[in-house]
Amino acid sequence: MKDFTRRDFAALLAAAGLLPLYGAREAVAVEGGAQELTHDHDMSQFPPHWFGSEKIAFLLYPQFTALDVVGPHYMLASLMGSTTYLVAKTLDPVESDLRMSIVPSTTFEQCPADLDIICVPGGSNGTLAAMQDEATIAFLKDRGSRAKLVTSVCTGSLVLAAAGLLKGYKATSHWAARETLRDFGAEPVDARVVVDRNRITGGGVTAGLDFGLQIISKLRDQRYAEGVQLLAEYAPEPPFNAGTPHTAPKESVEMMSGMFVQFLENVRAVAKAKAGMP
Amino acid sequence: MKDFTRRDFAALLAAAGLLPLYGAREAVAVEGGAQELTHDHDMSQFPPHWFGSEKIAFLLYPQFTALDVVGPHYMLASLMGSTTYLVAKTLDPVESDLRMSIVPSTTFEQCPADLDIICVPGGSNGTLAAMQDEATIAFLKDRGSRAKLVTSVCTGSLVLAAAGLLKGYKATSHWAARETLRDFGAEPVDARVVVDRNRITGGGVTAGLDFGLQIISKLRDQRYAEGVQLLAEYAPEPPFNAGTPHTAPKESVEMMSGMFVQFLENVRAVAKAKAGMP
Repeated sequence: MKDFTRRDFAALLAAAGLLPLYGAREAVAVEGGAQELTHDHDMSQFPPHWFGSEKIAFLLYPQFTALDVVGPHYMLASLMGSTTYLVAKTLDPVESDLRMSIVPSTTFEQCPADLDIICVPGGSNGTLAAMQDEATIAFLKDRGSRAKLVTSVCTGSLVLAAAGLLKGYKATSHWAARETLRDFGAEPVDARVVVDRNRITGGGVTAGLDFGLQIISKLRDQRYAEGVQLLAEYAPEPPFNAGTPHTAPKESVEMMSGMFVQFLENVRAVAKAKAGMP
Repeated sequence: MKDFTRRDFAALLAAAGLLPLYGAREAVAVEGGAQELTHDHDMSQFPPHWFGSEKIAFLLYPQFTALDVVGPHYMLASLMGSTTYLVAKTLDPVESDLRMSIVPSTTFEQCPADLDIICVPGGSNGTLAAMQDEATIAFLKDRGSRAKLVTSVCTGSLVLAAAGLLKGYKATSHWAARETLRDFGAEPVDARVVVDRNRITGGGVTAGLDFGLQIISKLRDQRYAEGVQLLAEYAPEPPFNAGTPHTAPKESVEMMSGMFVQFLENVRAVAKAKAGMP
């Protein structure tokens, strides 16, 4: 068991974005790198197994859905000792489907070779393009072959599937797109988070929050996950009961399903093209 | 009632990020600006009052919490016809508390003078700094004085409060910081989303999702909000019941409260300093 000094703790908390809560003086002291903490806090409440060293990468690609990344990023970046990466083809800002640009922290080339977690967000046309982009698929095939957890949120699972990473696995996706997983040799499951061996896939968009907390409890323990849930004040109160096609008004389901018709046709065409490839 | 042509619809859907779902061909056609749609879709399912023209701005400041912005941004950017802005002091990427950099789309100077919605995210030390930053406070005082809805997520309400925008209003904040609203003349309420006249404040971090859907139903109607909820697959299944101090294990509440002690002390010092100012 590693013997953590106070400076270790401070660095770990800083990395996890938790240290700032302790007040500016300490944050500054730590940023200098060599100073001791200027306050005295009781760190004994943190058991040693709460500190890890995971390398966690989120894929960014043009027209990704930002919430698919930012939800689980909030959760997983709270893992003390972990390092998160936002990986893209280049370091240029990547524009989301709703026109929010996020700056990658590393590139396909520079991203650590051995990742603990790789997470792929969804989207619509951008996702289709990513599924057909050689460099993106090569990156996922490579890192996905060694990552401890291969994960996705929303239609991100279609990109994993296009990289051959879900063949023979149970998985989920956005409800409207889930069935197309079958075209890639995966077994679609109607659930918010699906775990099959080291593949963890989340449903549409907001499923990334539940997915993130589940991974935290898996990598640390329930108490740790409960702390993060409390920090995130994750006690949802959706004003309506329309979050799944099982509970939403029929009209809403028809309307939203209608929006996906062309997308699904295109996804199936990609699957067909891939199946014909060596 | 405005007579919408098909091109209007396409532009509105594109602005709302919804068009891509219809397939790549149309998205490209619309980006060209002058072309008609190449597919024929039944748009009659959208009632005219579903299209608006809101200007919606999210404040970005160093060390803001990204999820506080990205949650409601997802929801509100889905308002057909609306335009969203990510506003900061300069156009340089702004780094969040968990080290995710988001690129502003406009500056304090360039941001439209009359906004329909202004939304301020929370954070910890970055929030404290924003509360004391002259340019940020001047921007909020100005836009907040005319915005139709003045809103926040998490400790963002402390920045609104520091700008004098919550004096005499009921409001909420992150559970751990909520009581300090009183120091700024606001009335703290223990609720996930608090509406008092045109002030709408959300609780910690994830409350931004419920907050966003509530605003959608206020600006459009329930059916519209249900469609967005279904698109976001917002049928939360938190793996634990620790989202509020009322339901979380006592140890978790103590641990997380302990993290905020210094922060709250600093917030109160800011309130005291502001109270002494003219």
